[in-house]
Amino acid sequence: MTRIIYCNGSFHSETERTISVFDRGFLFADAVYEVTSVLEGMLIDFWRHMERLRRSLGAIDMDLKTSDQELLHIHRQLLERNNLHEGLVYLHVSRGVADRDFVMPDVDPTLVLFTQKKDLLNSPAIQRGYKVISVADQRWQRRDIKTVQLLFPSMAKTEAIRTGVDDAWLVEDGYVNEGSANNAYIIRPSGDIVTRHLSSRILAGITRRAVLRYARKAGVKVVEEPFTIAEAQGAAEAFVTAASLFVAPVVEVDGVPIGNGKPGPMVRKLRDLYLKECRNSAC
Amino acid sequence: MTRIIYCNGSFHSETERTISVFDRGFLFADAVYEVTSVLEGMLIDFWRHMERLRRSLGAIDMDLKTSDQELLHIHRQLLERNNLHEGLVYLHVSRGVADRDFVMPDVDPTLVLFTQKKDLLNSPAIQRGYKVISVADQRWQRRDIKTVQLLFPSMAKTEAIRTGVDDAWLVEDGYVNEGSANNAYIIRPSGDIVTRHLSSRILAGITRRAVLRYARKAGVKVVEEPFTIAEAQGAAEAFVTAASLFVAPVVEVDGVPIGNGKPGPMVRKLRDLYLKECRNSAC
Repeated sequence: MTRIIYCNGSFHSETERTISVFDRGFLFADAVYEVTSVLEGMLIDFWRHMERLRRSLGAIDMDLKTSDQELLHIHRQLLERNNLHEGLVYLHVSRGVADRDFVMPDVDPTLVLFTQKKDLLNSPAIQRGYKVISVADQRWQRRDIKTVQLLFPSMAKTEAIRTGVDDAWLVEDGYVNEGSANNAYIIRPSGDIVTRHLSSRILAGITRRAVLRYARKAGVKVVEEPFTIAEAQGAAEAFVTAASLFVAPVVEVDGVPIGNGKPGPMVRKLRDLYLKECRNSAC
Repeated sequence: MTRIIYCNGSFHSETERTISVFDRGFLFADAVYEVTSVLEGMLIDFWRHMERLRRSLGAIDMDLKTSDQELLHIHRQLLERNNLHEGLVYLHVSRGVADRDFVMPDVDPTLVLFTQKKDLLNSPAIQRGYKVISVADQRWQRRDIKTVQLLFPSMAKTEAIRTGVDDAWLVEDGYVNEGSANNAYIIRPSGDIVTRHLSSRILAGITRRAVLRYARKAGVKVVEEPFTIAEAQGAAEAFVTAASLFVAPVVEVDGVPIGNGKPGPMVRKLRDLYLKECRNSAC
């Protein structure tokens, strides 16, 4: 069955070609995006994703007239038309179509959404834990804006897979920034969670925000500061968060097992906590 | 009149939508490109552009089976079908179409080409000289690969235009890397040309290579080392090179005029030299 996707006001078969070669998303990576997870047919943290979308749009001086309510309607239409109960909805806004010029034109943006059916709750990688390698972070300096300039993260993730592991942690000035498409955390032997503080070096993850809030509510101490690969290798446990992963254990960094090299109890508890709490904000 | 563009083996009207939303050029900026200038219906330095294209493709582990000879044929077809005598041919190779995943798929690439009619020889900005502002370089670390991750250069160029000048020079660690889409040079009072040496910080310009060769042949000393904004402001003359500009004078940096604030004789000579020599390698 081919998917039904959304493009600029109408629904299409996924096999239809709906983008102009002059779309600035294609020629200049002049586009931002969001990915919202779907559990039991409900959208997780939808409003926070739209809030971040508006921030990304503002940061690159782009405007999308479609309201959040209309975007919610499109998301729900896609879930229904594709009979999606579990997976992701990808939303993409590019600046629009204009003859190629570095100077940004004032045109109507291109809005694209599509679904991806995925077994989010029971992926094997999450059961056995992620193995990661460290890679020098070569991305642009504004990773707080969720743009489609994803070539480097894609190269790093591909290198990781080819090396026989699951993901890459991007390291800069000796400290871990984040994963290829997720925020990174360690849990110290003391039980404290350590994750890099927000700045232009990393994306302000929606799942990050929720997990840290739930953890603090549950009495876990959260320290927002950078950590090194060596600290990660000496940690009790480690994990990553993303809308597509929720909370996923990390069991090995650069060939060194973390703890006993198996998903640990703290991360399992955080994942359960997140999965319980996130449904309250689902819509 | 609408242009005829090329996309994956066939010619289309420019208004036709020929790209899938799942094209990785659109979703991941997983694409590289070249721009070749056209004078009197001839392609300037075509083979060098194709040589760099292959290097860019190799650097991101992509393969294009279409031979350089076939690419030349497509370029010529486009010139003919669009009756183009002066302007540019843009060539774009993206990794191709696959469901969205950071792991690079093994699929057939998307090949797109289109023309842009432009008055390259007599642009007013070249007659009066470029004014530039300096902007901190926030691009990714591999600017030697000509990828479509052009959001930052596009932001910088747009900022420059809105400020009332022509372009931005991207500065890093105190030194000028290059312009938004061109290589940058100063000419010292001694007559020596200074331009940053090749590295992953800048693109190895095809026009840069040619201009430096012609300059050396004409007995001008070329020093390949970085220079500061202050040095540029104290220079005798300054200029930029790009396939779309050839050699263009720069007459002001951050509000400070260079020399007498008008295009100088050395840059005019270099431009004339380039325009004379480049036709020998046209095809």
